[in-house]
Amino acid sequence: MATAQRGQKYDRGSTVFSPDGELFQVQYAQEAVKKGLTALGIKSSSGVILAAEKRKRSELVEARSVEKVFQIDDLLGVATSGLIADARILTDEARRKAQINRLRYDEALMPQTLAEEIGAIKQTYTQHGGVRPFGIKFLIGGVGEREAQLYETDPSGTISSYKAQAIGDKAEEARNVLEDRYGTGMGIDEMIRLALITLDEVIEENINFERVEIGKIDSENKKFSKMSSSDISEAIDSLNLSD
Amino acid sequence: MATAQRGQKYDRGSTVFSPDGELFQVQYAQEAVKKGLTALGIKSSSGVILAAEKRKRSELVEARSVEKVFQIDDLLGVATSGLIADARILTDEARRKAQINRLRYDEALMPQTLAEEIGAIKQTYTQHGGVRPFGIKFLIGGVGEREAQLYETDPSGTISSYKAQAIGDKAEEARNVLEDRYGTGMGIDEMIRLALITLDEVIEENINFERVEIGKIDSENKKFSKMSSSDISEAIDSLNLSD
Amino acid sequence: MATAQRGQKYDRGSTVFSPDGELFQVQYAQEAVKKGLTALGIKSSSGVILAAEKRKRSELVEARSVEKVFQIDDLLGVATSGLIADARILTDEARRKAQINRLRYDEALMPQTLAEEIGAIKQTYTQHGGVRPFGIKFLIGGVGEREAQLYETDPSGTISSYKAQAIGDKAEEARNVLEDRYGTGMGIDEMIRLALITLDEVIEENINFERVEIGKIDSENKKFSKMSSSDISEAIDSLNLSD
Amino acid sequence: MATAQRGQKYDRGSTVFSPDGELFQVQYAQEAVKKGLTALGIKSSSGVILAAEKRKRSELVEARSVEKVFQIDDLLGVATSGLIADARILTDEARRKAQINRLRYDEALMPQTLAEEIGAIKQTYTQHGGVRPFGIKFLIGGVGEREAQLYETDPSGTISSYKAQAIGDKAEEARNVLEDRYGTGMGIDEMIRLALITLDEVIEENINFERVEIGKIDSENKKFSKMSSSDISEAIDSLNLSD
Amino acid sequence: MATAQRGQKYDRGSTVFSPDGELFQVQYAQEAVKKGLTALGIKSSSGVILAAEKRKRSELVEARSVEKVFQIDDLLGVATSGLIADARILTDEARRKAQINRLRYDEALMPQTLAEEIGAIKQTYTQHGGVRPFGIKFLIGGVGEREAQLYETDPSGTISSYKAQAIGDKAEEARNVLEDRYGTGMGIDEMIRLALITLDEVIEENINFERVEIGKIDSENKKFSKMSSSDISEAIDSLNLSD
Amino acid sequence: MATAQRGQKYDRGSTVFSPDGELFQVQYAQEAVKKGLTALGIKSSSGVILAAEKRKRSELVEARSVEKVFQIDDLLGVATSGLIADARILTDEARRKAQINRLRYDEALMPQTLAEEIGAIKQTYTQHGGVRPFGIKFLIGGVGEREAQLYETDPSGTISSYKAQAIGDKAEEARNVLEDRYGTGMGIDEMIRLALITLDEVIEENINFERVEIGKIDSENKKFSKMSSSDISEAIDSLNLSD
Amino acid sequence: MATAQRGQKYDRGSTVFSPDGELFQVQYAQEAVKKGLTALGIKSSSGVILAAEKRKRSELVEARSVEKVFQIDDLLGVATSGLIADARILTDEARRKAQINRLRYDEALMPQTLAEEIGAIKQTYTQHGGVRPFGIKFLIGGVGEREAQLYETDPSGTISSYKAQAIGDKAEEARNVLEDRYGTGMGIDEMIRLALITLDEVIEENINFERVEIGKIDSENKKFSKMSSSDISEAIDSLNLSD
Repeated sequence: MATAQRGQKYDRGSTVFSPDGELFQVQYAQEAVKKGLTALGIKSSSGVILAAEKRKRSELVEARSVEKVFQIDDLLGVATSGLIADARILTDEARRKAQINRLRYDEALMPQTLAEEIGAIKQTYTQHGGVRPFGIKFLIGGVGEREAQLYETDPSGTISSYKAQAIGDKAEEARNVLEDRYGTGMGIDEMIRLALITLDEVIEENINFERVEIGKIDSENKKFSKMSSSDISEAIDSLNLSD
Repeated sequence: MATAQRGQKYDRGSTVFSPDGELFQVQYAQEAVKKGLTALGIKSSSGVILAAEKRKRSELVEARSVEKVFQIDDLLGVATSGLIADARILTDEARRKAQINRLRYDEALMPQTLAEEIGAIKQTYTQHGGVRPFGIKFLIGGVGEREAQLYETDPSGTISSYKAQAIGDKAEEARNVLEDRYGTGMGIDEMIRLALITLDEVIEENINFERVEIGKIDSENKKFSKMSSSDISEAIDSLNLSD
Repeated sequence: MATAQRGQKYDRGSTVFSPDGELFQVQYAQEAVKKGLTALGIKSSSGVILAAEKRKRSELVEARSVEKVFQIDDLLGVATSGLIADARILTDEARRKAQINRLRYDEALMPQTLAEEIGAIKQTYTQHGGVRPFGIKFLIGGVGEREAQLYETDPSGTISSYKAQAIGDKAEEARNVLEDRYGTGMGIDEMIRLALITLDEVIEENINFERVEIGKIDSENKKFSKMSSSDISEAIDSLNLSD
Repeated sequence: MATAQRGQKYDRGSTVFSPDGELFQVQYAQEAVKKGLTALGIKSSSGVILAAEKRKRSELVEARSVEKVFQIDDLLGVATSGLIADARILTDEARRKAQINRLRYDEALMPQTLAEEIGAIKQTYTQHGGVRPFGIKFLIGGVGEREAQLYETDPSGTISSYKAQAIGDKAEEARNVLEDRYGTGMGIDEMIRLALITLDEVIEENINFERVEIGKIDSENKKFSKMSSSDISEAIDSLNLSD
Repeated sequence: MATAQRGQKYDRGSTVFSPDGELFQVQYAQEAVKKGLTALGIKSSSGVILAAEKRKRSELVEARSVEKVFQIDDLLGVATSGLIADARILTDEARRKAQINRLRYDEALMPQTLAEEIGAIKQTYTQHGGVRPFGIKFLIGGVGEREAQLYETDPSGTISSYKAQAIGDKAEEARNVLEDRYGTGMGIDEMIRLALITLDEVIEENINFERVEIGKIDSENKKFSKMSSSDISEAIDSLNLSD
Repeated sequence: MATAQRGQKYDRGSTVFSPDGELFQVQYAQEAVKKGLTALGIKSSSGVILAAEKRKRSELVEARSVEKVFQIDDLLGVATSGLIADARILTDEARRKAQINRLRYDEALMPQTLAEEIGAIKQTYTQHGGVRPFGIKFLIGGVGEREAQLYETDPSGTISSYKAQAIGDKAEEARNVLEDRYGTGMGIDEMIRLALITLDEVIEENINFERVEIGKIDSENKKFSKMSSSDISEAIDSLNLSD
Repeated sequence: MATAQRGQKYDRGSTVFSPDGELFQVQYAQEAVKKGLTALGIKSSSGVILAAEKRKRSELVEARSVEKVFQIDDLLGVATSGLIADARILTDEARRKAQINRLRYDEALMPQTLAEEIGAIKQTYTQHGGVRPFGIKFLIGGVGEREAQLYETDPSGTISSYKAQAIGDKAEEARNVLEDRYGTGMGIDEMIRLALITLDEVIEENINFERVEIGKIDSENKKFSKMSSSDISEAIDSLNLSD
């Protein structure tokens, strides 16, 4: 409690270090991420899967409008957790960067480059006054020159690369499943299976196509695509069979 | 109460996260929306309806001047709840964007594009210092390339798409009616009926043409139009008959 | 009192919402309006009347210098209540806009357009830091393309249109008189009569030409003019006769 | 006291309204004016007189350097009370505006125009942050196209026109004298007499040429001139005679 | 004490008036002036003298480097009291203005013009946020078109003209001596004598050439010069004789 | 404790000195460095070694993505401790500077020049408001015109040159090992050995290739290279043998 | 104590005067200087000596990297005490100014000019908000057109010229030695001796070449040079002999 009170003197702005060298506003932005639904990414030599839990909503909501998995470019997608409006701003920025790269160099933007540029934007919002950090994590999946890649950027601007990673409110449970079951030789379909098993673990009610969103990039055809509801349904069904 | 007091330390600016990752100023702006009268939107393959409750006013007020439903472009309209002056600023911005789109690309602005652009403006006002969030929600209705669309943007900048949605002080009651009675196959007249039934539920006194404002876009003729007082009266009358 | 104290934590800047979604600085600016003397506007198909109470002053004050009713353009005038210097700033801005409209489009500025532009300026001063809201209300009267119009803009930037409206310290009493006696078919002289009767109600001492200022625009000749002292005197006299 | 304490929460910046709609910093700037020595202006069809009390100073002070009455243009002068350095800044601005008017339009700047422009500058300093209001009042005297004019601008930016007006620490006493003795038909010499009688009332010791500064503009020759010490002495002497 | 405490609420920034219309930060800057050593200026038809007390320092200090009397132009000099670094900034500014005047108009900068420009700079630092007032007074001496002139500018930006004036920590004592002994007909040597007698009064130990700095401008040759140590010594010696 | 409390009044911004002349925000940024894992650099006439401890992570993390040792240019590398996102920003800046140097002067950027430029950037963030200091230390290693060089820059912007230096949470323990065992005549392999022995001391569990990252620049071939996992493994094995 | 508490209300920003006219932040910056090791300068007609104590450091530190005496130009050098990173920023600025002077005027920058320009930069950081004063003192030594010069600039921006001066933590002790032993006719070698004797007094352990840094400029050859370790050693040895 005493510690908490000490901390509170240094937590009103992202440009103030605490005596212990902490940036509390950045930590609080991480809390905003933890309020988002779970999202995850898995990669192997076969490609990358980005998946996200979707909130159960009124039937009047258009399911497709509450996207958590976004296409950025032919070979690039992101999955997000945290403040939805913040996510859209950075998604738009990512798309702009991908377009500019194609215009300037006639080349696809590499996943690592995108991760570094998003990370740099986020860092800026933790060191300059008059703004707040972005309250989101991005999982960036894509196929680079040689292989599939999966990056995470957090509100501090730190970027890391993963074989498989989960973010959001049930990130820890999801990571346990991923660690238990991940295998480097997995094919696209196996990764989709793993994504669904993992989300099934963290979704409170029964998993179904309305609660799941999946994007995939195959290392072969190098094309980002979102899975259709019926394909997701089918995959869930086959999943149940194998249980 | 203790929680409330803790919160109050982080609620003076939109650039400060609370320790729980909340942006209180954005939440307070949502309260400003809840003080606005109810507005609603309904869409189907036949088109989109935007409707709003109007406050009972002195006879000296020009009824048409207290608009809550605005035309943005031939195929685009918005209904708003919250701070009226904030609504007008964004309405003007929306019209400007629609005009620019026509000038630059000789094309109508799509409802989704408008929703994304309004959402981006709103998000900016939640992340930078020296301003406050917009205290309004927009329901954006229009006919896109293939079908009618209905979007909501809230003060955080989040956008969502709905089959039918209500905003403002009696949003919850209204949503209940919409959920009970909405059908995807509804024609324009059925949607107007549903809008009136819904508003009748939330307006304290008897509904009449002076308390209701309705805009409609038919997927066929693709033309936004505001219903005349007499047309609204007639629709209300037929409504009563059917009660 | 407890409520007042809670409110006081959110009332030092116009860019801060209270937990209830209120903008206290905008409300306080409305108080500044309520300290101004009463002004009123009345319109009918015959034209528009703008009238204002004038403070009783030392004989050494030049009566004409304490204007509350201003000509903006041939067809446009405003009456104001609130901070006099703020009123002049916006009056000048209104005149500039009218001139620019004539230069650019060779057309008179419409009352509604002026109301919207003044409203937009006022809204800006309620959403950005480092400034305060304008402490005035404007009644904008003019003859548009088809008919006479009367608009009000308040410190929040909200605009509304009226058949007849009063602003300032005795606005409520004045509105009661207007509601009782207003008729849509009134001619210019009848509206002047109504304006005088209304002001007579709110002016503490006997009404006389020195306490009243009147501007009028006839829908026919479409020309704003201020009534002369003698014309006002005459109108007051005829008024007394009819009492 | 309780009121005072409430007020004190809203009086640190000119961009904050109090709950009663007051701008305390503007009121405090008015107090700065009340600490200045008395100045006054008188006009009639014959012209304008601007006069000011001068502080009794050490003999080592150059009397002419402590000006309170300034020439602005051939036909324009000002008398000031309040912060001397603020007065000089606005006096310089006034001179610049007069010069620019002559250069651009080959015309003398009208007293009303100057009053409006000075008022607009002052208003700006009451509505934007990071500055304080001007701590001065100006009496602006001049001969316009048709007649002599006398304007006052106060720290809020409000402008008013007077037949005769006094500002500064003894403004009230001075106004009483002016109200008692002013006559619209006064000639220049009669106005000088009235100015001296008025200042004699407010100057604690005996009036003499060293305590008085007078500027005059005759409607005929339309030329601002400062009275010489000997002319003032003579006028005071003749005044004594008539007592 | 109670007054002091009230004042302290309004003394953190130069853009805040106290309820009594005071600018405390400007007053505090005047205190910084009072901590500087005494400086003085004397003028007559024969010319101007600027003199300053110098602090007793270690022998290792280069006496000439601790200037308080600066040449600005051929005909212009200043003597200062207060914050030494602030003085240098304005001295440099003064020199720049003098050079620009020569380049643009091929004319020497007049003392009054310099005083007005320095006053305007100082005033700006008392009305805008984010800066503090200059903590210095300038005595500006020079020969204008017709005669020698002596101006003072204080931290508020107020300028005044004197026959003789003293500033700094012992300004009052010095002014008493000047008032007793000043005569308008004094020649340059008599003014130097008066300067030395005055400084002798305020310097705690015996006056000697190391404690005194003198600049002079003769109305005839119109050339600013600093007195040499030996000339000052001689003048002091002759002074002692006359005692 | 009392001291701590006094300090807390001056520790919210990097532009405020404490009464003792301390910049607390800069000190707190040093604490952020102390939370980073240990990194070290060693140089001799043979070249430079940069090494860093890597955190033990989930197997799902791509080991190579959590770099602490970065190549900047052919002859330049850095090792960092502290906030990872801050490190990346400055690493990118360093690379930009190296590229510009090659473009402008067709020359490699010298280690000292880079150290000075990074130091200057960091200093700026300790003297200007609205930002926070960088929470990182850099060890900059490279081969200059004549010899290998190793520089450290800390959050204050101070730069120093070392034969061998360690930074991060176990910097002190590491420095002890380095001081004990460093020899100026060491070859590249000996320095790698020393780096591994030092890291072995500070890594809590057994050292292995996954916990260590090493970059080296040979004075001969002047080429920065990162050691491969197998080379590191081999070096660790040979290390164990020699134990 | 009471005084201390009063002061604390005015010590958070360099743009706030205390009621006594003090600038506390500037005083606190002086404290930062007092934490630096002692540096000194001595000049005579023969030239200038700049010397500084060096901290005893680990053997792994490159001794030459912790410079306190810097060459600025052929004829100019500085010695510093205080915040090392601040010193480097101003040293770089000094070098830039020297280069620009050579490019523009083909002339060496004079020591006085450099002192005035560094002083002006420092003053700016004491009068404008959003920055802190520089926490360093500079001793600037050089040979001007006629003779050797030695200037000091302090954090307030004040500059002074000395025959000999010491700054830093033991400045007072050092000044006592300098005052006792300085002679105006000293040759370069005698000044080096005096510098070493003085530093020997203030260095706690025995003086040796690793604890001392010396720069010298001979009035004859007009070339700044740093003494080599061996030359310093030799000078120290000969010093011991003479003891």
